[in-house]
Amino acid sequence: MKILGLDSSGLVAGVAVVENDVLLAEYTTDYKKTHSQTLLPMLDELRNMIELDMETLDAIAVASGPGSFTGLRIGSATAKGLGFALKKPLVEVPTLEGLAWNMWGTSRLVCPLMDARRNQVYTAVYEFVAEGEGCRLQSVVPQRPMDIAELIEELNGLNREVVFLGDGVPVYLDRIREQTAVPYSLAPSGSNRQRAACIAALGAVYFAQGRTVSAADHKPEYLRKSQAEQESL
Amino acid sequence: MKILGLDSSGLVAGVAVVENDVLLAEYTTDYKKTHSQTLLPMLDELRNMIELDMETLDAIAVASGPGSFTGLRIGSATAKGLGFALKKPLVEVPTLEGLAWNMWGTSRLVCPLMDARRNQVYTAVYEFVAEGEGCRLQSVVPQRPMDIAELIEELNGLNREVVFLGDGVPVYLDRIREQTAVPYSLAPSGSNRQRAACIAALGAVYFAQGRTVSAADHKPEYLRKSQAEQESL
Repeated sequence: MKILGLDSSGLVAGVAVVENDVLLAEYTTDYKKTHSQTLLPMLDELRNMIELDMETLDAIAVASGPGSFTGLRIGSATAKGLGFALKKPLVEVPTLEGLAWNMWGTSRLVCPLMDARRNQVYTAVYEFVAEGEGCRLQSVVPQRPMDIAELIEELNGLNREVVFLGDGVPVYLDRIREQTAVPYSLAPSGSNRQRAACIAALGAVYFAQGRTVSAADHKPEYLRKSQAEQESL
Repeated sequence: MKILGLDSSGLVAGVAVVENDVLLAEYTTDYKKTHSQTLLPMLDELRNMIELDMETLDAIAVASGPGSFTGLRIGSATAKGLGFALKKPLVEVPTLEGLAWNMWGTSRLVCPLMDARRNQVYTAVYEFVAEGEGCRLQSVVPQRPMDIAELIEELNGLNREVVFLGDGVPVYLDRIREQTAVPYSLAPSGSNRQRAACIAALGAVYFAQGRTVSAADHKPEYLRKSQAEQESL
């Protein structure tokens, strides 16, 4: 099984190809260029480097939100275009699940934080449950936009060790330090942001479960209306 | 602090740049091309993509072995050349520690396996110890070339859950399944092979501790003699 993974939901642009249990290639940047300048050139570079025949892909997995509106649209448009042209199904991997996958196998709760501005984060809480020779990601608190103070209060109530990751961590670090009453840790560089390899790896799990959509049917999950939409109400 | 990480110790070729807590870029391939065809072109690609001024690097971290003799020499030669030209120190990150870093924060023992042929693996056993807001990697069994059967017996004696990763896992999977008497898991794709981001992230930790060497003084740690050397004895 060979899966292409794409993530442009946040500041990171990432492209990866996973075949069975092996990461064939991954290219990640976290830089000020816009994803429209980076995502396809990165895919093209990677495709050339590993002489990837795109026809051999089984599916295209994409970080399906939440995230930056523009970023999600670029990722989704790219995945839809590829899926349509190659006649391949898409696999929608929730961005927060992809982020949490970085902490594969931890016994702590995993709390990804994506900065959603105005004191809010896109967040969820997960745990890993041992299954066979691996682990399954299980939702503890479902994904939603949430006030950071309210989230930390909820985590304190769960009374378990927690690991935070995501671009919301530096933004709300003072709050985390002041209010978190349970033991916590912060994921290290290299495992604390979106990775297309996580999208591809989780995408492979979901593909095997038959959780695919057509390129035509796919749309990103924004979790809340854009500021422009909210202001027009 | 900005650290370049290089890993060409096994089948993977990887290049990454970490700045403080953020992975600025990472490029990984696991493909049949030789590292002399991939490592420097990948670095050049990444440098262009993120407009990296190499003068701003604080150090060059390299997977310092064990691993493939040729792979280690290419990685070391590249790191030495860059360090010499840029007048930057090198940080030697043991390959097995870099591999183990993939499982950051797990409460299980971490056992990286690198295939060393002839029923042997380069291996070690680590655990993560909570420290401040993060974790420290601690050695439980020091790195060495080891018979796979002997290793599993030792792990059984430690009587703790263990997670295996590395290119030795598919090679010795039958042995692992038959002989491992403690609960075990296998790291998933995307986190089960060398990553230059892990070398850069651990390199940053060691750089902060002053564990640097000059480009002139660095040499890889092979852990055993090459077959040619053994046969000439």
